[in-house]
Amino acid sequence: MTDLSEYRVRKEPFYQPQGHEVSLFAAAYRRRLPVMVKGPTGCGKSRFIEYMAWQLDRPLITVACNEDMSASDLVGRYLLDAGGTRWIDGPLTVAARLGAICYLDEVVEARQDTTVVIHSLTDHRRALPLDKKGELVRAHPDFQLVISYNPGYQSLMKDLKSSTKQRFAAFDFAYPPPELETEILVREAGVPAHVAAQLVCIGGVARKLKGHGLDEGISTRLLVYAGVLIQDGVTPQDACRMALVTPITDDADIRATLEHAIRATFV
Amino acid sequence: MTDLSEYRVRKEPFYQPQGHEVSLFAAAYRRRLPVMVKGPTGCGKSRFIEYMAWQLDRPLITVACNEDMSASDLVGRYLLDAGGTRWIDGPLTVAARLGAICYLDEVVEARQDTTVVIHSLTDHRRALPLDKKGELVRAHPDFQLVISYNPGYQSLMKDLKSSTKQRFAAFDFAYPPPELETEILVREAGVPAHVAAQLVCIGGVARKLKGHGLDEGISTRLLVYAGVLIQDGVTPQDACRMALVTPITDDADIRATLEHAIRATFV
Amino acid sequence: MTDLSEYRVRKEPFYQPQGHEVSLFAAAYRRRLPVMVKGPTGCGKSRFIEYMAWQLDRPLITVACNEDMSASDLVGRYLLDAGGTRWIDGPLTVAARLGAICYLDEVVEARQDTTVVIHSLTDHRRALPLDKKGELVRAHPDFQLVISYNPGYQSLMKDLKSSTKQRFAAFDFAYPPPELETEILVREAGVPAHVAAQLVCIGGVARKLKGHGLDEGISTRLLVYAGVLIQDGVTPQDACRMALVTPITDDADIRATLEHAIRATFV
Amino acid sequence: MTDLSEYRVRKEPFYQPQGHEVSLFAAAYRRRLPVMVKGPTGCGKSRFIEYMAWQLDRPLITVACNEDMSASDLVGRYLLDAGGTRWIDGPLTVAARLGAICYLDEVVEARQDTTVVIHSLTDHRRALPLDKKGELVRAHPDFQLVISYNPGYQSLMKDLKSSTKQRFAAFDFAYPPPELETEILVREAGVPAHVAAQLVCIGGVARKLKGHGLDEGISTRLLVYAGVLIQDGVTPQDACRMALVTPITDDADIRATLEHAIRATFV
Amino acid sequence: MTDLSEYRVRKEPFYQPQGHEVSLFAAAYRRRLPVMVKGPTGCGKSRFIEYMAWQLDRPLITVACNEDMSASDLVGRYLLDAGGTRWIDGPLTVAARLGAICYLDEVVEARQDTTVVIHSLTDHRRALPLDKKGELVRAHPDFQLVISYNPGYQSLMKDLKSSTKQRFAAFDFAYPPPELETEILVREAGVPAHVAAQLVCIGGVARKLKGHGLDEGISTRLLVYAGVLIQDGVTPQDACRMALVTPITDDADIRATLEHAIRATFV
Amino acid sequence: MTDLSEYRVRKEPFYQPQGHEVSLFAAAYRRRLPVMVKGPTGCGKSRFIEYMAWQLDRPLITVACNEDMSASDLVGRYLLDAGGTRWIDGPLTVAARLGAICYLDEVVEARQDTTVVIHSLTDHRRALPLDKKGELVRAHPDFQLVISYNPGYQSLMKDLKSSTKQRFAAFDFAYPPPELETEILVREAGVPAHVAAQLVCIGGVARKLKGHGLDEGISTRLLVYAGVLIQDGVTPQDACRMALVTPITDDADIRATLEHAIRATFV
Repeated sequence: MTDLSEYRVRKEPFYQPQGHEVSLFAAAYRRRLPVMVKGPTGCGKSRFIEYMAWQLDRPLITVACNEDMSASDLVGRYLLDAGGTRWIDGPLTVAARLGAICYLDEVVEARQDTTVVIHSLTDHRRALPLDKKGELVRAHPDFQLVISYNPGYQSLMKDLKSSTKQRFAAFDFAYPPPELETEILVREAGVPAHVAAQLVCIGGVARKLKGHGLDEGISTRLLVYAGVLIQDGVTPQDACRMALVTPITDDADIRATLEHAIRATFV
Repeated sequence: MTDLSEYRVRKEPFYQPQGHEVSLFAAAYRRRLPVMVKGPTGCGKSRFIEYMAWQLDRPLITVACNEDMSASDLVGRYLLDAGGTRWIDGPLTVAARLGAICYLDEVVEARQDTTVVIHSLTDHRRALPLDKKGELVRAHPDFQLVISYNPGYQSLMKDLKSSTKQRFAAFDFAYPPPELETEILVREAGVPAHVAAQLVCIGGVARKLKGHGLDEGISTRLLVYAGVLIQDGVTPQDACRMALVTPITDDADIRATLEHAIRATFV
Repeated sequence: MTDLSEYRVRKEPFYQPQGHEVSLFAAAYRRRLPVMVKGPTGCGKSRFIEYMAWQLDRPLITVACNEDMSASDLVGRYLLDAGGTRWIDGPLTVAARLGAICYLDEVVEARQDTTVVIHSLTDHRRALPLDKKGELVRAHPDFQLVISYNPGYQSLMKDLKSSTKQRFAAFDFAYPPPELETEILVREAGVPAHVAAQLVCIGGVARKLKGHGLDEGISTRLLVYAGVLIQDGVTPQDACRMALVTPITDDADIRATLEHAIRATFV
Repeated sequence: MTDLSEYRVRKEPFYQPQGHEVSLFAAAYRRRLPVMVKGPTGCGKSRFIEYMAWQLDRPLITVACNEDMSASDLVGRYLLDAGGTRWIDGPLTVAARLGAICYLDEVVEARQDTTVVIHSLTDHRRALPLDKKGELVRAHPDFQLVISYNPGYQSLMKDLKSSTKQRFAAFDFAYPPPELETEILVREAGVPAHVAAQLVCIGGVARKLKGHGLDEGISTRLLVYAGVLIQDGVTPQDACRMALVTPITDDADIRATLEHAIRATFV
Repeated sequence: MTDLSEYRVRKEPFYQPQGHEVSLFAAAYRRRLPVMVKGPTGCGKSRFIEYMAWQLDRPLITVACNEDMSASDLVGRYLLDAGGTRWIDGPLTVAARLGAICYLDEVVEARQDTTVVIHSLTDHRRALPLDKKGELVRAHPDFQLVISYNPGYQSLMKDLKSSTKQRFAAFDFAYPPPELETEILVREAGVPAHVAAQLVCIGGVARKLKGHGLDEGISTRLLVYAGVLIQDGVTPQDACRMALVTPITDDADIRATLEHAIRATFV
Repeated sequence: MTDLSEYRVRKEPFYQPQGHEVSLFAAAYRRRLPVMVKGPTGCGKSRFIEYMAWQLDRPLITVACNEDMSASDLVGRYLLDAGGTRWIDGPLTVAARLGAICYLDEVVEARQDTTVVIHSLTDHRRALPLDKKGELVRAHPDFQLVISYNPGYQSLMKDLKSSTKQRFAAFDFAYPPPELETEILVREAGVPAHVAAQLVCIGGVARKLKGHGLDEGISTRLLVYAGVLIQDGVTPQDACRMALVTPITDDADIRATLEHAIRATFV
């Protein structure tokens, strides 16, 4: 049997609340409502779930969803062993059986109908049928299902089905407001507050370009990268180019706009 | 051999009849007619089947259908064992052999032609050929097949074939009428009647938006979520936003309409 | 070796001839010509083949074809056993080897080129090469191949290849004429003749709607369902709605037309 | 090792030459040139190859090609056995190794690039590399490759690659001329000459409809079916309808034209 | 371990140089540059590589590429054996490990990204990582990679990636000039020089039709076929029809043009 | 356990810095930031990473990504062994576990969603969940992830997801400036400086044709090939044709332009 102890979040993750999402999530967890967290890349959704798992003192099993993921990858499969076939629970089954929070990251990447397997865990049944094994796993009282979802992303081809959406209480996430993001940079990258504020300012320029040539703005994570490089002795110009410009676009105009903002900020 | 006892519905599920569907289903079961239940997400189709299984005192085997489901997932397959290969009945075969009600949820998600395997169980033959095993399973006298189907959903790409539809007696389901839905919220979420009525009223607003920007309205299940959160101390505004707005839409106009209805209801 | 006795049709199936199809099929069987039966859903094609198998006293192996069916599903495959791999004949091979009638139901659902495997059984060779096994199975003298085909169904994407069609003698089937269908309902559903005639009349209305909003009319099978429910005490209105309206359409106009016909019939 | 004796053509197949194709094929075989036979369905291509195999006294291995056929199906594969994996030669390898004529029927149905495996057997190398086994099979001196091809069929999607076509000497086949076809019917169906001539006449009508609503005309094989049924006591009208009309079209106009021809012929 | 001796080219292949391609290839081999040979079907690319392998005295491993070819088919895979799994080197790995020339014929047929596996063997690394085995095979000093490519063929869908093309020194091939091709026919088909010249003349007519109804002209190989048949006693008209017309086109106009050229040549 | 010593870069690779990319990469490595290197084919991206691995004294595990690559190819899989199944770490897992630099070459070729597996290694988690094994691999402190990306290539169909891009610090690469490229040719091909300069000049002509009929210019690698052939005694015209013209284009106009430049340069 899988040992959940390695899924414990060992030390408090750094998380700066943006509102009262912590108490609302706690209420949802008390009633074991399934939860969906929505928002752009790198705004802190995964970190929030990790923080809540730490605060609620529950093990956290994260699954990065992808198009090639089959239902068996979530639920489990038979493996051939010296003594014949042996059933191996998938991560969703482990979480349901033993009482972890199961976090399906970017769930919409998974084949739309693969997500159907979570339905019976998210209504009054709270059970997972293992058809291939002929077993019905009734969810542990502590089990909760959490999914993430990036609305800026979804095309006509890939969206959650209504019958899936209608099973979750949901939270909206966004990039943190400037003062908070500055604080995060000071803490995560170790830069002085004025440098952090300068980086946050460049991030703001990029986020305004979203939909005008950029698919998404610059995430907090990339701002932290820039700060970390500056803190390591790289010049702000080089650090910003490496972390904030080159990774996200090859468009000459957008690059010029961003480079201009960098030069204007770090005179 | 699979033990059907774990598929027994142990206690009476809460079900509020909307008409005389209980006696009609019972008649269909007496004559073992295959049944199709039609209706939108979260209006209580699965709950009804569970209730009928309890009332008819038959085990219930539910299969959440999905696009990756192969005929083998329904019918069974060979597994490699210490002593060679061993046949494992799939859920449909178990139900047919031992006399359960087999409920194929969202059957239209399954590959259209996978559904062909149910044909011989739904006509005068009442038998399931296990081609790979060379066995013809004659259905147990108590066996019945039930499928669910969401007509609001079906595209040109995915619909049941006529030759499948023509094998079922069918029931239409809809969201319960306001008084009944209020009663359900009082019982399921534990909220006072006036709060339940307020939530049902918001649900009514959302359901009118179906086809005008919303794929589907708000299910009874989401109204129960909102009630549960309110009952847990969350403010009605927060509870409604989490349970009734954020999960179902990212459209700014629709969100505004829904938020307006929430503010107007919970003054 | 598979035991064909379970494929015997044990008692005479109820079959009402519509013309001299019984003697024509018998002639085709005497010369072992491959046969194709064509017609809409639920008009009695499968029943006819079952009847002929009973009359000719041949075992009948039916295969419900589907898109996921591979040539191996028809022909056979190796299975891993305690003592290594073991070949398992598929249903077509069993029928060819032991002399059954093999009935491929809805053959056009199978991948077009999968149907190629039947070619060598349907010309002067009357043999089935098992390429994977390196064996050439010469068909038993009693073997015959029968396929069904629903012409109302076929799209440009899915049709039998000419080189397949040109291997069969064919029969057209249609819904039985009113008097005959009334007789069938009396016998199959146990309703009095006047009720049977009323149901047949409603079926006639629906069949005229084919191509005007309905993919197919109402099959004899659904009329039997309605009769069975009436015979069980359900009101004719409820019985017709459950069996004749709700399963086949969600279109409000068509439903209204059908409901009107029902009310007009069962005053 | 596979025993080729079961691939011997045991008795002389009935074949009526249409020109000097027998001596030309014999010349091609003497020089072991790969051969392609082209023509419509049921005009006798497969019969010709069988006849040549009988005349040249070579075993004949026929493979009905289909879209799901992988290179392994032609070449061979490893099978798991009690003593580990064991290589099984595919039909092409068997033919190349032991010196049979290998006939790939409807080769264009196979995935275009699967046909690439035959290239090294059809140029100066006359060898087949078994990549998975690490063996290079040099073709037996008696080995010859023959493929069939139906030009009326090929779409833009499915055609032989030029680099494949340029490896074959080719023969055109067509339906036999009337006198010859009459003779064939007399012999194959056992009908008197005047009945055979009447059937050939109906066949001629249908063949003129090719491209005007019929994909292909009526093959000699179907004419034989009609004759066989007549010989068995079925009326000419019924026999023609079963064998010449119903199998090949559902178009009312074409059916009327054909029925008219039948009535006009068998007054 | 695979024995390379069976991949030795045992006797000098007949090859008529068209220019100084022999010395240029030898230079490329001395520096172990990867080589690409380009040209139409049947112009002698494969023969040239075989000749060079003979002259350089290196074993030659040829792989006919196709769309279904996976990276494992080139690199190797694990096979299940009596004693567990055993790794089997694929042909590319064998060549790299033991120092053969590896010739990937029609490489563009392989899935574009499958060709990525050859990259590390064609730059300064000269190594092949066997990811599944956790081994890095450093190429034998004698190893060289050669690919063939037919530019007349490539569609937008199928072309080599630039990052692949930029790894090869390349040679253009074309049909041999008339005098040389005549010499080849005399030698390969054994026909007298004047017959050879007549065939070459017909080949010239067909090659001018390329792009005007013919995908490709007539290859030297087909001219040899025609010569061989003539030498075997077939009339020139029949031989040309079998070898030069019927295999390559079904277009009536093109056939007429070619037949005309044949009649005009062999009066 | 895999032995990393064979992934050590044994001798200093020749690398000519184009700017201060060496110190910037070293800073990124000190902070273990994931790195993306961007640029056209053959401009030295892979060489740079190899050089950095040598300088940082870390083993380097390179994976050539391709469309058929599954997550299992990166992460690992179970293999069947004499004693049952045994887990084999994939190259990404080996690198994460033992502390190598893992270089995913042409990562965009891999299925977009397969790249999702690298997410948890590229954020604060620095861990790789092996779902199938039920193990969470925490990355070794020395582990770093590097990916390459060719922006000139990406179509709408194939691009990195924003949520992947936002995880990397990035470097732009381009072809080296003329003086530097000349130096490289002298060193790598062994040609005198004036010949190297002539080749670089021809390379410049080709690179200006990019987007005007050429997908990409001529890489430094191809210039080295030309130099190597010249150094081996091939005439400059032949060497340039083989290495700089024939491999990259079949367009007659572009070939003429390039041939003209070659003749003009090597008078």
